[in-house]
Amino acid sequence: MKPQEVDITFQPSGRRVYVLPGTKILEAAGRAGIILQTPCGGRGTCGKCRVQVISGPCGEAADSGPLSGELAAEGYRLACQTEVQGPAVINVPSESMFEHRQQILVSDSGNAGNFNPATRKVFFELAAPSAADVRSDLARLHDAIGDDVSISPDMVRMLPGFLRAQDWRGTAVVSGDRLIGVEAGNTADSACGVALDIGTTTVVGTLFDLIGGKEMAVASSVNKQVAYGDDVISRIRRVREDRGALNVLQNAIVETINDLIEQLVAQTGIPVSRVYELVAAGNSTMQQILCGFDPSALGELPFVQVFDKAQVLPVSRLGLKAHPGADIYVFPQVGGFVGGDTVAGVTAARLDRWDKPVLFVDIGTNGEIVLAHNGSMLATSTAAGPAFEGARIRQGMRATAGAVEKVIIAEDVVLNVIGNIRPAGLCGTALIDLTAELLRMGIIDGTGRILPAEELSGEVPDAVRKRLVAEDGDMRFMLADAGETLSGEPLYLWQRDVRELQLAAGAIRAGIRILLRRANLRAEDLGAVLLAGAFGNFIRRRNARRIGLLPQIACERIRFIGNAASLGAKMVLLSADERRYASEARHLIEHVDLSQDADFQTEFGNAMLFPDGDVDACA
Amino acid sequence: MKPQEVDITFQPSGRRVYVLPGTKILEAAGRAGIILQTPCGGRGTCGKCRVQVISGPCGEAADSGPLSGELAAEGYRLACQTEVQGPAVINVPSESMFEHRQQILVSDSGNAGNFNPATRKVFFELAAPSAADVRSDLARLHDAIGDDVSISPDMVRMLPGFLRAQDWRGTAVVSGDRLIGVEAGNTADSACGVALDIGTTTVVGTLFDLIGGKEMAVASSVNKQVAYGDDVISRIRRVREDRGALNVLQNAIVETINDLIEQLVAQTGIPVSRVYELVAAGNSTMQQILCGFDPSALGELPFVQVFDKAQVLPVSRLGLKAHPGADIYVFPQVGGFVGGDTVAGVTAARLDRWDKPVLFVDIGTNGEIVLAHNGSMLATSTAAGPAFEGARIRQGMRATAGAVEKVIIAEDVVLNVIGNIRPAGLCGTALIDLTAELLRMGIIDGTGRILPAEELSGEVPDAVRKRLVAEDGDMRFMLADAGETLSGEPLYLWQRDVRELQLAAGAIRAGIRILLRRANLRAEDLGAVLLAGAFGNFIRRRNARRIGLLPQIACERIRFIGNAASLGAKMVLLSADERRYASEARHLIEHVDLSQDADFQTEFGNAMLFPDGDVDACA
Repeated sequence: MKPQEVDITFQPSGRRVYVLPGTKILEAAGRAGIILQTPCGGRGTCGKCRVQVISGPCGEAADSGPLSGELAAEGYRLACQTEVQGPAVINVPSESMFEHRQQILVSDSGNAGNFNPATRKVFFELAAPSAADVRSDLARLHDAIGDDVSISPDMVRMLPGFLRAQDWRGTAVVSGDRLIGVEAGNTADSACGVALDIGTTTVVGTLFDLIGGKEMAVASSVNKQVAYGDDVISRIRRVREDRGALNVLQNAIVETINDLIEQLVAQTGIPVSRVYELVAAGNSTMQQILCGFDPSALGELPFVQVFDKAQVLPVSRLGLKAHPGADIYVFPQVGGFVGGDTVAGVTAARLDRWDKPVLFVDIGTNGEIVLAHNGSMLATSTAAGPAFEGARIRQGMRATAGAVEKVIIAEDVVLNVIGNIRPAGLCGTALIDLTAELLRMGIIDGTGRILPAEELSGEVPDAVRKRLVAEDGDMRFMLADAGETLSGEPLYLWQRDVRELQLAAGAIRAGIRILLRRANLRAEDLGAVLLAGAFGNFIRRRNARRIGLLPQIACERIRFIGNAASLGAKMVLLSADERRYASEARHLIEHVDLSQDADFQTEFGNAMLFPDGDVDACA
Repeated sequence: MKPQEVDITFQPSGRRVYVLPGTKILEAAGRAGIILQTPCGGRGTCGKCRVQVISGPCGEAADSGPLSGELAAEGYRLACQTEVQGPAVINVPSESMFEHRQQILVSDSGNAGNFNPATRKVFFELAAPSAADVRSDLARLHDAIGDDVSISPDMVRMLPGFLRAQDWRGTAVVSGDRLIGVEAGNTADSACGVALDIGTTTVVGTLFDLIGGKEMAVASSVNKQVAYGDDVISRIRRVREDRGALNVLQNAIVETINDLIEQLVAQTGIPVSRVYELVAAGNSTMQQILCGFDPSALGELPFVQVFDKAQVLPVSRLGLKAHPGADIYVFPQVGGFVGGDTVAGVTAARLDRWDKPVLFVDIGTNGEIVLAHNGSMLATSTAAGPAFEGARIRQGMRATAGAVEKVIIAEDVVLNVIGNIRPAGLCGTALIDLTAELLRMGIIDGTGRILPAEELSGEVPDAVRKRLVAEDGDMRFMLADAGETLSGEPLYLWQRDVRELQLAAGAIRAGIRILLRRANLRAEDLGAVLLAGAFGNFIRRRNARRIGLLPQIACERIRFIGNAASLGAKMVLLSADERRYASEARHLIEHVDLSQDADFQTEFGNAMLFPDGDVDACA
């Protein structure tokens, strides 16, 4: 029962994961954080997800299909069709990645029209004043940087001295329509920005070269606010109870970001003074606390945000480490708990531009759902609860080393454990897998009850049947016995765990149903369901659909789009056009407040029941 | 010879002046700082300068002319045609004042379209968030103040608390497209602004009600920078010699303005927090020091300014007393010593909109000259020197009590002394009068030499001839003997004084000639010469023309327009349209640097010679 996982290394990133033999490359890549393009939904028809197997057994190429014999001979395979069978090294061409959108932005090819960061640098050599040319200092500088660029009084104050000391040469730093600095000499080839994905738990910063467009470094860190509460509700409560807490929490996130920026510049040797622009996407609570805007009204009905348009704040005002003239752009927000991360995700996914109705789902403590249809969008947020993060699950844990993250049941139970060590607990994806598998075997019924062995059909294999344990009238299902676990205690799925999963999945399912009903659509009308966010990347679509977390549509229409919020933040950093688009997209989104929807309680009740069976047999 | 001056009081201002009998009301009003409209040039044909004589002998009304018999019966007279003969009280209707332009701006009549201050207040009563309306706090506020108004992060920070504490009611203060404050309750009827005329010596502040448009209070004060030098050159030198001096001088003008604002609010009982906007016009040195911009480059050739577009600075940055969100607008500058006061004057005079070439002359230590022709303008500044302010004149003084300010010579010399006391010295206007009169009598020749008695024609009356005194080869002319003066010393015009006047007038005359030549125009082509500024108001046109200070054109084309810079500042305070116009007008102005003009030295040399005679016999 202890399965032999195999080591897969992806190039050029060098990321490694351990997966069970028989896992599709597509899935293995997703677990490594590499989201491949699958416009055909993983049916093996479009050929967009092709990767090159450098070493290791990965099966023969199909005789027909979108890969030419020549490419197949070079080791190219379709990631959605090919299973890993042993340790392998796999090269992922950049054009196969979902983030190819971003690659297009930053490439210097013919498609690079979209790469136009708000920040630009202009090296200037001005004519010194002379008898024939007595124009003002500013008029001279405007010749170089353009007449529409505004120059703040603080800049004007230092310019006469700077220009004369530097013999009328230097480099202007222009952000949007503002001059934010002048530098001695020619520094026009050096400009950076940082895109920030501000999660309640984790903050990720990515440093970009704003001249060439290249990603230069990534760093992530725990949000220092976790010291003041694990989730947004507890942090909001802090602020409501103590007026000083807003400052404390703001300082915590500012320190977190500053630490990240220090890591990023340390990795690259670039001085902090060359960071001219920050872009941040986060949920409404994170964004408001970062800005210093009181989130108290998010702590009581009807959950009101302070702002909805994008906010642009001077970093100097917040104490963020960057060029002193830099601004931080904070994404527009939609309403309630539908925040900037959702707008960033919508931006990355170009959700309003699909030709069929499309559903965007980002599952975390809150599930954010956006339904796009005919160019407008409905968005809502639902309290999925922390079940997917392992909380409230009796032996649950986060998706870290020791967590069971995948479960397959056939003749017996096969587990995949993060870090390839003995299991310590269940993380969210395993909870979904396990529940779906038990549903399929009839061990859990449609109401979520774990059945006692005597009620099971004869088809359940003995090895599986033996794992059922009765106690106090409830059943539990053993995943690993005492000898197999890290702690020496057996690892179970408890009846209460299934109830928690029903609550979490039911909330999201009900939210999706309400939006579909508002748009007068059925699940079958959806051209695609886009799964965004860290958690979404790791779930098995078929299993998520089996437990009713996702709509009952063919798996090929369910797609992973990775960390769309982070991608949106990067796009906005790299392109002023994308920033405009984010604002426009925000205006197309209507907020739906589920707490005010008369049907929500009914839908939620219905959604607590598991669907009847599998739509199809996809992975 | 001690003439009997008479006391004239002007209503409604209550201003009093002492003038010689026979003085035109127009001139007496000008000496009281009241500039009347004279579009016909004082020929008695347009009727715009009419005033009402309340008491005192002012002659009969003309039989014909623009005044109806009915008005004449009520005491109305044309100020340009009517002489005062004894003490009088005269009422000046607002429509007769040159500043009627401003009156139109602020009136609530049909012409009020131009009154649209950048600052507006909006009382709001917002719907509180409810189940049916969960929009953000800012979305609610934008409903009231408009979607285009930007709200700074600092404002956003306080809004959630303010709105809830105030039960979603309050008054927004919007300046241009920025929200600068919110106030509890309905304060929409209370908003003020201050227009500042920042002179090298004197600063004048005018408080306006920005809701009704009324002028509420005026205050003036010595510029505290005089402690660091009388003129701009000495203050620039200070800054060049000592890096800390810029701060010291900036603080001095900030303190001067703050004292003025305190006086203004004390006079009216309006709190400083209701002053939402400041507008300042001054010469380039004054403006740059106020902004904290280094004026050093104005202290050496080729006299370069730091900026030319209007500057808008937060008062909080400068430490000015006003609402903390207020800005101060500082006028655009042209180049060299042609500063914001000139642009403000051009704005007030609508110099680009005349249908004939028009010359704008503002005489002070520097003379600023603008020639408008076919919609574009040439502007220059010339160092007139301090002669017109009494400096470098051996017995010269400023135009304060005891200064001879008017001289008439017929059978003998008749003097008008400020304050109606014994004379103590000569001020600039008297210097011009005296020189012109002596030129007419042939006592001074075209080269500026005071002739000895034996060289004079027989037509010079004996009483006048006897006033000539020879010493060391030079002549001097006695205005008052030892018994007639305050000091007990005789008062003379010295030969050297005439030379100083030749230098001062010659510089301005040469500047005018250069501009005319650049525009390919002759003096005769000028539709009007507009005399702006405090000094210009007090000179006699004919005498100024006689000494060559003004072009040799008919007096009716020479008009007084009062303190045009101050008027321009007020207009910009009262109207965002005027602010736009000031920026547009600035772009129509081309700066002419006389020091770089090959012809200037020749012109200056020629201009040292006095013109041949009088063009006509006007006052």
